Amino acid sequence: MKPGETQLTVARDGRLTPEMEAVARDEGLAPDRLGEAMAAGRVVIPKNRIRPDVRPLGIGSGLRVKVNANIGTSPDDSGPDNELLKLAACHEAGADTVMDLSTGGDLQAIRRAILARTDLPLGTVPIYQAAVEAVGTRGGIIHLSVDGLFEAIAAQAAEGVDFMTVHCGLTRAAIDRLRSQGRVGGIVSRGGAFLATWMIYHDQENPLYEHYDRLLNIAREYDVTLSLGDGLRPGSLADATDRAQVEELIALGELARRAKEAGVQVMIEGPGHVPLDQVETNIKLMKSLCEGAPFYVLGPLVTDIAAGYDHIACAIGGALAGMHGADFLCYVTPAEHLKLPSVEEVREGVIAARIAAHAADLARRRPQSWARDRAMSEARQKTDWEGMFQHCLDPIRARALRESSRPSAEDVCTMCGEFCAVKLVREFLTKC
Amino acid sequence: MKPGETQLTVARDGRLTPEMEAVARDEGLAPDRLGEAMAAGRVVIPKNRIRPDVRPLGIGSGLRVKVNANIGTSPDDSGPDNELLKLAACHEAGADTVMDLSTGGDLQAIRRAILARTDLPLGTVPIYQAAVEAVGTRGGIIHLSVDGLFEAIAAQAAEGVDFMTVHCGLTRAAIDRLRSQGRVGGIVSRGGAFLATWMIYHDQENPLYEHYDRLLNIAREYDVTLSLGDGLRPGSLADATDRAQVEELIALGELARRAKEAGVQVMIEGPGHVPLDQVETNIKLMKSLCEGAPFYVLGPLVTDIAAGYDHIACAIGGALAGMHGADFLCYVTPAEHLKLPSVEEVREGVIAARIAAHAADLARRRPQSWARDRAMSEARQKTDWEGMFQHCLDPIRARALRESSRPSAEDVCTMCGEFCAVKLVREFLTKC
Repeated sequence: MKPGETQLTVARDGRLTPEMEAVARDEGLAPDRLGEAMAAGRVVIPKNRIRPDVRPLGIGSGLRVKVNANIGTSPDDSGPDNELLKLAACHEAGADTVMDLSTGGDLQAIRRAILARTDLPLGTVPIYQAAVEAVGTRGGIIHLSVDGLFEAIAAQAAEGVDFMTVHCGLTRAAIDRLRSQGRVGGIVSRGGAFLATWMIYHDQENPLYEHYDRLLNIAREYDVTLSLGDGLRPGSLADATDRAQVEELIALGELARRAKEAGVQVMIEGPGHVPLDQVETNIKLMKSLCEGAPFYVLGPLVTDIAAGYDHIACAIGGALAGMHGADFLCYVTPAEHLKLPSVEEVREGVIAARIAAHAADLARRRPQSWARDRAMSEARQKTDWEGMFQHCLDPIRARALRESSRPSAEDVCTMCGEFCAVKLVREFLTKC
Repeated sequence: MKPGETQLTVARDGRLTPEMEAVARDEGLAPDRLGEAMAAGRVVIPKNRIRPDVRPLGIGSGLRVKVNANIGTSPDDSGPDNELLKLAACHEAGADTVMDLSTGGDLQAIRRAILARTDLPLGTVPIYQAAVEAVGTRGGIIHLSVDGLFEAIAAQAAEGVDFMTVHCGLTRAAIDRLRSQGRVGGIVSRGGAFLATWMIYHDQENPLYEHYDRLLNIAREYDVTLSLGDGLRPGSLADATDRAQVEELIALGELARRAKEAGVQVMIEGPGHVPLDQVETNIKLMKSLCEGAPFYVLGPLVTDIAAGYDHIACAIGGALAGMHGADFLCYVTPAEHLKLPSVEEVREGVIAARIAAHAADLARRRPQSWARDRAMSEARQKTDWEGMFQHCLDPIRARALRESSRPSAEDVCTMCGEFCAVKLVREFLTKC
């Protein structure tokens, strides 16, 4: 691509990039159809123009539902080595993208170490770096400077970050809605809390909203995909789909159109804590207000009380969201709400989100997904254990579980032993 | 209750049993409304008349979604002690009912030991005992005798079993449908496989169908709730909602009406492996064909390829099923399809199913369920860790996770440390 071009502008010119061709192949789509979806802003390929080795990945309508895994340090747990082990776990467990949400230690060094070791699209939330610097050098979030924020964004774009969460829709109007709404859970987005604190203290508009064109210029230069964050996403079921959330979503829809007009790839982030009966509404509302932009959901968690098992609450919400049109699921680990996840919890979170994404792909009748489940079922009918391990989502765990409890006969398992229904039917019923 | 009466006949007479009053209290329902639902067959209270100490539990429309946990030995893993540890895990993790599916060791001794140690309603699948005896003493399932089957049913009823799975709808007509359908996964129900094998070998009708009145007489005598099993439930997504499954379901609807007419409490078992986009259809079809009888789902598993994590695939399907009207969720453990579950896997399975049931209760707008999530969110806003542990589903695991990674400040966790959004908003934003 020439300077100034992005995947979006090329698609709009009716041309195909090598990345579009790779994504079309990977998804089993006609390249022209993918190009049309990209030109309309229904699909993004998050890839910084200066990163040569990133795996081309499409996110959006008509494509396989993708999974993101968050890693990164915190002030209380800032060792970079552990984050690289988590990165390896993300790869091994099959995450499609990774976000580095570090807020502890040397943020730039950690980010660069991650960039050097992954070919997955990498996302960040640049306001974290600006906030950590404001607290570290000037004593508080309120000392965050507008220039400091944009410098962090520009620096991370120049390092090769592929997509960035920017909470541009958290406007003063949205904060007014929040106040008049009254919430049980307030603000639970870190970026949202940083911005709201700053905005209220200084009595000023959100700089990411006010200076949105400055953001678009950086994003276009590097073809960074903007992930418009939902700073007011509900953090309690009681707050789901409230006026504050929808006010922000309307603003995100306007900003998404401006991004597309500027040739910048854009997706929209969504809730959060949402009861199961409101998941469909949230997806359809977003797709309508944001004119079909790819939807990246942070959950949704379908209950507040699953601490220790929030990956399961998230899998339930994510699967249903995916069935109704969400394109990209952010994982949640069993440690959510309790602590920074361990390497094993990262792995567990990725697999749970992949189950949700796959269940959604099946519900959306994606032929390649159905072929895999069919192959698994055929292996089961033959009690072909190696075939089952090959087709299942996590062969390592499936094999370990079977090995931990060996049956007396090779062709059954210890659940039913000789009373295996599959074996009985195969050996007897089919011969009659 | 007098001899010959059941919870159903009493309700139909417009009277209330102590069990109905207890269930109404527990559910926050007017006793008369519960009585009406019971009289109509939309709610059951599975309690054998001779078991004095069983916890009164309602299952059906308008009630909290309930969770069953299967325990029991297999020929390859027949130690009874382990099953009693699993029973304790079911209690501790909050299962509403337990089924003993033992097929290995001294079945009667195991069942009696379980009955002696639990006040939860206990379910069984009596054909397992008859089949194990036929194999053990006569060399094969085909030697199962009709009298032996009914003797097993009568003996278990006389021991105090509260509900029984009986695959009465697996008729010759249903097997014909199965043959003409052609399936990827064949028959995966153990009871279904036993019966089909016997029926085809002997060229005879299903004895549980042919002699259904004999079954009803035993059930009425002890007020055993019949759980009409789905011997042809799909064991592969490719087979979901096929003609064989629906043929059997139609028969179950007819049999359910006959049970109710005979004063016998009855519920219906359902799939199985079902893609997410067919879950709602399955629930609505069952509720229509079976005239509102309580629906007990075995899953549904929304993908075939989650071996090692089938409790998550089940939680996704169970939550959606519950939202659309399923009343009773059978858990699945991480060991499903691989081996008999361990004690820890039983615990994990119960919690996953409880998350699904609770998500469904929230979607169905049950006020008591919403109050709990709200209390949890309020504790979160105060970073009141003891409050969070109190309101969450599994305080033991939540506390252990937090203890494993202590933050530097008591009021945050190691995920965000000092950059905790909740803390920031509470300490700063709310004061502006």
